[in-house]
Amino acid sequence: MSDPIPLFDNPISVPVIADVRAAAARIAGQAVRTPLIENAALNELTGARVFLKPENLQRTGSFKFRGAFNAISAMPDNVRSRGVVACSSGNHAQGVAAAARLHEIAATIVMPADAPKAKIEGTRALGATIVPYDRASEDRDRITREVQERTGAVVVHPFNDPFVIAGQGTAGLEAVEDITEAGLECDDVLVCTGGGGLTAGVALAVNDAFPDARIYSVEPEGFDDMARSLKAGTLQANAQTSGSVCDALLTPSPGETGFAINWRLLAGGLSVSDAEALSAVAWAFRNLKLVLEPGGAVALAALLTGKADVRGRTVLAILSGGNVDADVFVRALQQT
Amino acid sequence: MSDPIPLFDNPISVPVIADVRAAAARIAGQAVRTPLIENAALNELTGARVFLKPENLQRTGSFKFRGAFNAISAMPDNVRSRGVVACSSGNHAQGVAAAARLHEIAATIVMPADAPKAKIEGTRALGATIVPYDRASEDRDRITREVQERTGAVVVHPFNDPFVIAGQGTAGLEAVEDITEAGLECDDVLVCTGGGGLTAGVALAVNDAFPDARIYSVEPEGFDDMARSLKAGTLQANAQTSGSVCDALLTPSPGETGFAINWRLLAGGLSVSDAEALSAVAWAFRNLKLVLEPGGAVALAALLTGKADVRGRTVLAILSGGNVDADVFVRALQQT
Repeated sequence: MSDPIPLFDNPISVPVIADVRAAAARIAGQAVRTPLIENAALNELTGARVFLKPENLQRTGSFKFRGAFNAISAMPDNVRSRGVVACSSGNHAQGVAAAARLHEIAATIVMPADAPKAKIEGTRALGATIVPYDRASEDRDRITREVQERTGAVVVHPFNDPFVIAGQGTAGLEAVEDITEAGLECDDVLVCTGGGGLTAGVALAVNDAFPDARIYSVEPEGFDDMARSLKAGTLQANAQTSGSVCDALLTPSPGETGFAINWRLLAGGLSVSDAEALSAVAWAFRNLKLVLEPGGAVALAALLTGKADVRGRTVLAILSGGNVDADVFVRALQQT
Repeated sequence: MSDPIPLFDNPISVPVIADVRAAAARIAGQAVRTPLIENAALNELTGARVFLKPENLQRTGSFKFRGAFNAISAMPDNVRSRGVVACSSGNHAQGVAAAARLHEIAATIVMPADAPKAKIEGTRALGATIVPYDRASEDRDRITREVQERTGAVVVHPFNDPFVIAGQGTAGLEAVEDITEAGLECDDVLVCTGGGGLTAGVALAVNDAFPDARIYSVEPEGFDDMARSLKAGTLQANAQTSGSVCDALLTPSPGETGFAINWRLLAGGLSVSDAEALSAVAWAFRNLKLVLEPGGAVALAALLTGKADVRGRTVLAILSGGNVDADVFVRALQQT
């Protein structure tokens, strides 16, 4: 980890590229090395050369397994054996549950009661204990702390943890390797952004290889805390924590640890509407033959709507997950 | 090409592994090198180590681009310049249309009027001229010949062409390379089978690397002409050419050229019902986050139903395409 960065009142440890490389070694053989996908129609439509990193094909259906497995693997044995607890709307939940199962330790997941059924069932099927809470009226961090105190389990934070951020960064590292191997350089990067852990990890990997690349967060409209924080230079909160179909991206505000990176490395933040995210889900169905969840499609939506102006450039866009309930997917297909 | 094999009255030229390798060189940089995907849930369910080759991620949404691009690339310039004509329910149609466009030649496609809308629109969007016909009452081969005589275009047969078979075989060659690189050998292979071109090409590649592998065709019930032909040792026809949701696999009988290979290299033929194919589509949505068309999911269906008994073995299954209309996909999701 790097020296503490004096961005906040309490200096914090922030991961660096070496931590992303260490994470890549830890997850090798357990995480899927997802391919880079290029699509002729998307290139034509954007006037760019776009590489998509389909993390919906990752173990548990989203990138979250990377960070969870890295964080749990990095724990000392006598800490890890106490089990883990995490709060998550479902993707981090499944990532932690799968990683805990592989390490043969207990996992408790604090999940919003309105999380997609596919995510709740997926988490349960992986052997985790689920503690539901009401997203509007209850504080998930407080509930997580209660579980921690009661069971002795170690918290695996969904994004405000240097090992989690380093693990998510392996998605960026793989993409950088593939783009470099193709003899290319990356000009623009679009990352689906919730708490900013994936974004920070990818930014570390991309910035190390391509320091001139412009890296953008993409968020749901009304939940653009990262975009506003980047502009303000301080952490900004969202007015609400529910009310978008992009359930994976609804965090109260950016994580401090990731923001220490994102604030330094990001070019700015974009946002797309729910309708645009659902249109991107439908477009991916028709053209990419990939199942994306709305939150996993916002970076693609930024390309399809032209909100990311990438003409003539080489672009990396992360498709961050595909854990979508059938009824939402059907709604997306019938919308357009 | 190999020496003619005296299986039929008129000896025919049959591709060999060198032709598959030549095809791989021709399609490089134009076709997608699709990844091999492994899924923890599928391994657990089958008790096997299963590698999936997702050709739905191929250019135009199915493996067909491989054979079409290889065949058109292999034509002498003065032949290719006359343009091409093909008959197809949609996947070969799009493969030929995309390959023709890349070579900047005209393409005419004879398509059944009841082909999936996604396939008709996809073919038209690629710049091909479409000639519709009635699948039940009209002979597509005769119509194709008429177009050929009228326009001078060269026929690109969907499966009974050695260059097309060699091109489809590149999917098998890539899978063999990836499995070998992982230090493994392939025990069982399952291929979605219509006319048998993909099956024959994959069989050439697999048999060259793993001569002991058991290779199976998988067909829709009621359209198991390959399975019956393999048993009989002579070409058997289907009683009908429509009436299954697996539109991509509804051929009158196996192609002679491919059958000369399949008859020698296949261990047998399996078949699955429409309901089983649709269940596999839904399973792939939930677990693989891939969009498959029913015909592209029959090999997966053979695994999920246990019709292919693969316990303890290393398996390659080809997911051959993902060009499915939204209404059929919704039906698959709502069936289970």
